[in-house]
Amino acid sequence: MKPQNRVIIENISPQINHGRYAIKRVIGEVVSVEADIYADGHDVLQAYLCIKHESQRIWKNILMIDKGNDRWQADFKVEKQGNYEYTVQGWIDHPLNWQHNIERKIKDKQHVNVELLDGIQYLQHLLKHANQSESTEIKNWITLFEDAEEYQTAIEIAQSEELHGLFIKYPLQKFVTEYEQKFKVYVDRHKAVFSAWYEFFPRSASQTAGKHGTFKDCEKLLPRVADLGFDTLYFPPIHPIGTDFRKGKNNTLSPTPEDVGSPWAIGSEEGGHKAIHPELGTLADFKSLLKTAQKHGIEIALDYALQCSPNHPYVKEHPEWFTWRPDGSVQYAENPPKKYQDILPINFETKAWKALWEELKSILIYWADLGVKVFRVDNPHTKSFLFWEWVIGEVKKQYPDTLFLAEAFTRPKVMHQLAKAGFTQSYTYYTWRNSKQELIEYMSEISQGEGKEYFRPNFWPNTPDINPYPLQDGNENLFLIRYFMAATLSANYGLYGPVYEYLVHQPYPGKEEYLDSEKYEVKHWDWTQETKLTRIIRQVNQFRRENLALQFTNNIQICEIGNDALLAYYKESADRSNRVLMVVNLDPHSTQSAMLRLPYEQMGIQPNTPLVMHDLISDKSYTWSQEWNYVELSPYQYPYHLFVVKTQEIDTAP
Amino acid sequence: MKPQNRVIIENISPQINHGRYAIKRVIGEVVSVEADIYADGHDVLQAYLCIKHESQRIWKNILMIDKGNDRWQADFKVEKQGNYEYTVQGWIDHPLNWQHNIERKIKDKQHVNVELLDGIQYLQHLLKHANQSESTEIKNWITLFEDAEEYQTAIEIAQSEELHGLFIKYPLQKFVTEYEQKFKVYVDRHKAVFSAWYEFFPRSASQTAGKHGTFKDCEKLLPRVADLGFDTLYFPPIHPIGTDFRKGKNNTLSPTPEDVGSPWAIGSEEGGHKAIHPELGTLADFKSLLKTAQKHGIEIALDYALQCSPNHPYVKEHPEWFTWRPDGSVQYAENPPKKYQDILPINFETKAWKALWEELKSILIYWADLGVKVFRVDNPHTKSFLFWEWVIGEVKKQYPDTLFLAEAFTRPKVMHQLAKAGFTQSYTYYTWRNSKQELIEYMSEISQGEGKEYFRPNFWPNTPDINPYPLQDGNENLFLIRYFMAATLSANYGLYGPVYEYLVHQPYPGKEEYLDSEKYEVKHWDWTQETKLTRIIRQVNQFRRENLALQFTNNIQICEIGNDALLAYYKESADRSNRVLMVVNLDPHSTQSAMLRLPYEQMGIQPNTPLVMHDLISDKSYTWSQEWNYVELSPYQYPYHLFVVKTQEIDTAP
Repeated sequence: MKPQNRVIIENISPQINHGRYAIKRVIGEVVSVEADIYADGHDVLQAYLCIKHESQRIWKNILMIDKGNDRWQADFKVEKQGNYEYTVQGWIDHPLNWQHNIERKIKDKQHVNVELLDGIQYLQHLLKHANQSESTEIKNWITLFEDAEEYQTAIEIAQSEELHGLFIKYPLQKFVTEYEQKFKVYVDRHKAVFSAWYEFFPRSASQTAGKHGTFKDCEKLLPRVADLGFDTLYFPPIHPIGTDFRKGKNNTLSPTPEDVGSPWAIGSEEGGHKAIHPELGTLADFKSLLKTAQKHGIEIALDYALQCSPNHPYVKEHPEWFTWRPDGSVQYAENPPKKYQDILPINFETKAWKALWEELKSILIYWADLGVKVFRVDNPHTKSFLFWEWVIGEVKKQYPDTLFLAEAFTRPKVMHQLAKAGFTQSYTYYTWRNSKQELIEYMSEISQGEGKEYFRPNFWPNTPDINPYPLQDGNENLFLIRYFMAATLSANYGLYGPVYEYLVHQPYPGKEEYLDSEKYEVKHWDWTQETKLTRIIRQVNQFRRENLALQFTNNIQICEIGNDALLAYYKESADRSNRVLMVVNLDPHSTQSAMLRLPYEQMGIQPNTPLVMHDLISDKSYTWSQEWNYVELSPYQYPYHLFVVKTQEIDTAP
Repeated sequence: MKPQNRVIIENISPQINHGRYAIKRVIGEVVSVEADIYADGHDVLQAYLCIKHESQRIWKNILMIDKGNDRWQADFKVEKQGNYEYTVQGWIDHPLNWQHNIERKIKDKQHVNVELLDGIQYLQHLLKHANQSESTEIKNWITLFEDAEEYQTAIEIAQSEELHGLFIKYPLQKFVTEYEQKFKVYVDRHKAVFSAWYEFFPRSASQTAGKHGTFKDCEKLLPRVADLGFDTLYFPPIHPIGTDFRKGKNNTLSPTPEDVGSPWAIGSEEGGHKAIHPELGTLADFKSLLKTAQKHGIEIALDYALQCSPNHPYVKEHPEWFTWRPDGSVQYAENPPKKYQDILPINFETKAWKALWEELKSILIYWADLGVKVFRVDNPHTKSFLFWEWVIGEVKKQYPDTLFLAEAFTRPKVMHQLAKAGFTQSYTYYTWRNSKQELIEYMSEISQGEGKEYFRPNFWPNTPDINPYPLQDGNENLFLIRYFMAATLSANYGLYGPVYEYLVHQPYPGKEEYLDSEKYEVKHWDWTQETKLTRIIRQVNQFRRENLALQFTNNIQICEIGNDALLAYYKESADRSNRVLMVVNLDPHSTQSAMLRLPYEQMGIQPNTPLVMHDLISDKSYTWSQEWNYVELSPYQYPYHLFVVKTQEIDTAP
């Protein structure tokens, strides 16, 4: 910044912690940048939004527009994965200022011969950059500006659009203020915002009751998962399970020799985070599974759980990564008075942090080399944020397609920090947002709060750890409702699959947990069984694929509807070629009805334009031509509408 | 920041543009600092607010308090003029974490012998810092912790307040996260927030009609200004006035030889910004004036107007500081189609910026050396922001008492930028805020918006440039009302004195300006005259001096009152020893009444506590003991109350 600089630039948005972290986008999304830009006095300013992908050397400049009250704006579309940078430049544009002033003086009938002579310096500036034909014309203009006889012609040129265009094309950038900071955008593949996850325990994949499931069994289930329309199949840890302090059924401390333990107690004599639990099969089996999954359009997501059972090889090989107690034992996980003796946390304050970080990275690279590009990360909020920022950045440098889902159910700022540090997606509080008001507030926070730039929600109606209280009486309608909202409020969602599909709901008494949890035992599922839920899942996943509007989350608009038991929300694609409107009956017991207001204004459609509302759920169409329209939903048919909204009648069936 | 650091610090407030500019305080004020502070996991954190005055070498650490939701807070009081810095540190406090966990385990009846042994490392840490007597005790504790026989005593010590206190006193600061930025507070003398300005033209100070006033005449008026209770007497420019293109009466272009010109057309053959207009007197006269002013507790404020008449010595001596036109003339000020040929703007884009800046600074230093410490700066928004930031900083380094009032009536962001750049006070939009709603919104913006940290308003009901439309019919009540609000809404205020006191109101037809403006001619005032306004000014200035609550602006609380013509507002001193409540009838024509709600909650007083309301204006007292109370104001008595509020009856007179 030179002492003669007169332009001030401040309050650039979007930005996170003054550029400390990147905002996030997926390929094809737009970044709309705004800044306060102004100078002393009344001179004409110009401003550029400057952008560059990390693979490029030359910055691209996009002219910003003054939106009033000294707020300027410009957009850019991200087209490549990886990092973009952006910043803003502003300067007093003396040629444009000269043109602006001469126009006002001519309008005031002042004689502007001195002003014309003054303008020649700006024409000469143009000559330095102009092409051949432009140069010829500009030279001619200079002659006219100097010739008092040609005054009339000269003032026409001075005020011309053509000259204006050349001043914009070849700006005189003197004393340019460039914002002191460059801001970052990290661009992911589309799946970062749009994914449907199915979770099951591989050890429960056998078709034979009482048998420990294997990868081969899992492979046989892939067509089913693909048929349901899921694109991501997530497995709890697949590594050898520790034996010391192994947990019995229902998390008890006295296991029998038959107990299989929790797969999150990772590591035994058979290996650690890069090994496969022998009972699941071999590395070859896992590779085969990955290959078949790819054929079905399914990605396998592994669990990255950074903790060790007491039998993990790290404990002997790298005692410096753990905390040792005065009695010579390793400190186990605890949150007093609770103890987790089967799990040893890693000490991220270790002096040997560098070797530790490298080893933990090598786990991810090991599985990524095999083809795994999606990781569900267990309890990331109990590991160092700086480590996450580093390891996610490192892996993405090598494998930009890699996606990380943060399994953190904790305080809001901690969850947000993980997203800032680089996690692609995050588990959320959705499970505990049930009333209409709670859902509206939560969706507003997600789609309009500061987090919208970096926190990508992934809605799960249940997980192996969470058997939500409202689902514990097993009401099928509520299972349908909570599923449908997860899949349409958020573009990323997941199901702890068989448990949800088959309406498992018995709680561990008094807790928000499952009785006889699969975390501690092998289960058997009749995978051939189909429920009403199975069928609706297949349908909804198909509708999500076919409707671009459902592939984003922040495009949500809550609609007015006059009943606290009814929730209505609208989504449209960025180009407005696809519009959908959802109405959900939150009451699993009774039919509910109300008048719903079409959000004509947000849709950019003239009020009272007739709209064809095609409900994909019931496959019925309605024509609505008023702002307020009647809806009624019975929980005993389908407790929701999923309308595709069209302005032209393409389907006149009633 | 080390890779093992686990604490995150972000969103520190207050701050302006991420610390690019200083927040402002006056001596004795408090800075309340907040920050988001958290770490991974569940360990106990500690945080310091770190502060340092520029004259100090050692940072002072103040323990922060966790206010919930990971937001921490601490206060500090500024006690010296000049710059303070502040930042925030946070760390995992392992000794406190150990104590917290051992307490929970003991409560759970777990045996904690290993934990006691583990704690010895933290006692050993204390030994490194403890004094003699503390050391003796700590060594004893170590022995007890090691002795299984002394288990009961040891666990009592482990849980003791005494040990807790030592852990706080001698913290184990490992892997401390220090926020990457230091923030600044600039501390002024109290006058920066509390001042009463009176403005008159020295050339109109003569007691003899038709005579050009002199500094000697001004000196004779000082007792009057002091008697009215003003602490600052501001003069429009006192320098030689240009002759080329001199303006005649009412800003006409055809002056007679008798016309005195505008004092803002600075500079003639008799000198420039360091010279005195010969007709006003000599430098000795000016020094004498300053000396007498000081005796009366009045500071003289000069006008720092950075522009030149065509006759200013700079034009010949420093042609490189001006913009030259192709016809060999200097570019005069213009805002097409308007022209200001008597004023040449300075070109802040000049290559010779360094010499220019130094010379402009030397003007301020010249007058400051003579004893002038207050400058009203003319149109600062048409000069470079970077220059202001530099020159104000430079002058304050040498004369920290110096105050700068920015005369910028322009767009909000530009006005705010000048305040950020260092202006002590700013003119405001008060003149154009007349309705109750406008006044409430404007006071909320000032006292609660981001600007509250740096933008200090100075309310002027009129200026030589502004004859507000509502005052143009000369209604005395409205003069009283607008005066009273200026002096009590804002702790800084000013009057373009004689014109206001004597209810001058004739407008230049159709404009918000004065007819026969004093800007272009010598006026004669009968300074012996006293109006109702004169008397109320004397009173209100006295009440302002006697009531600390009126000496701050951001302490304002708007009160509920059920009438759109009545405005009520409350202020209290930081220690609540002084409380005042103002009620204003905005309607200059009619009596207005309504119920007013006492803001018991904001006052920190139990509802329905009887309060003695002593109205300083009418010198009557009332006892209010209910939340809602009746008020009635007639514009033909006094259109306002200024209640001093006391919880004890000290005056029982009705």
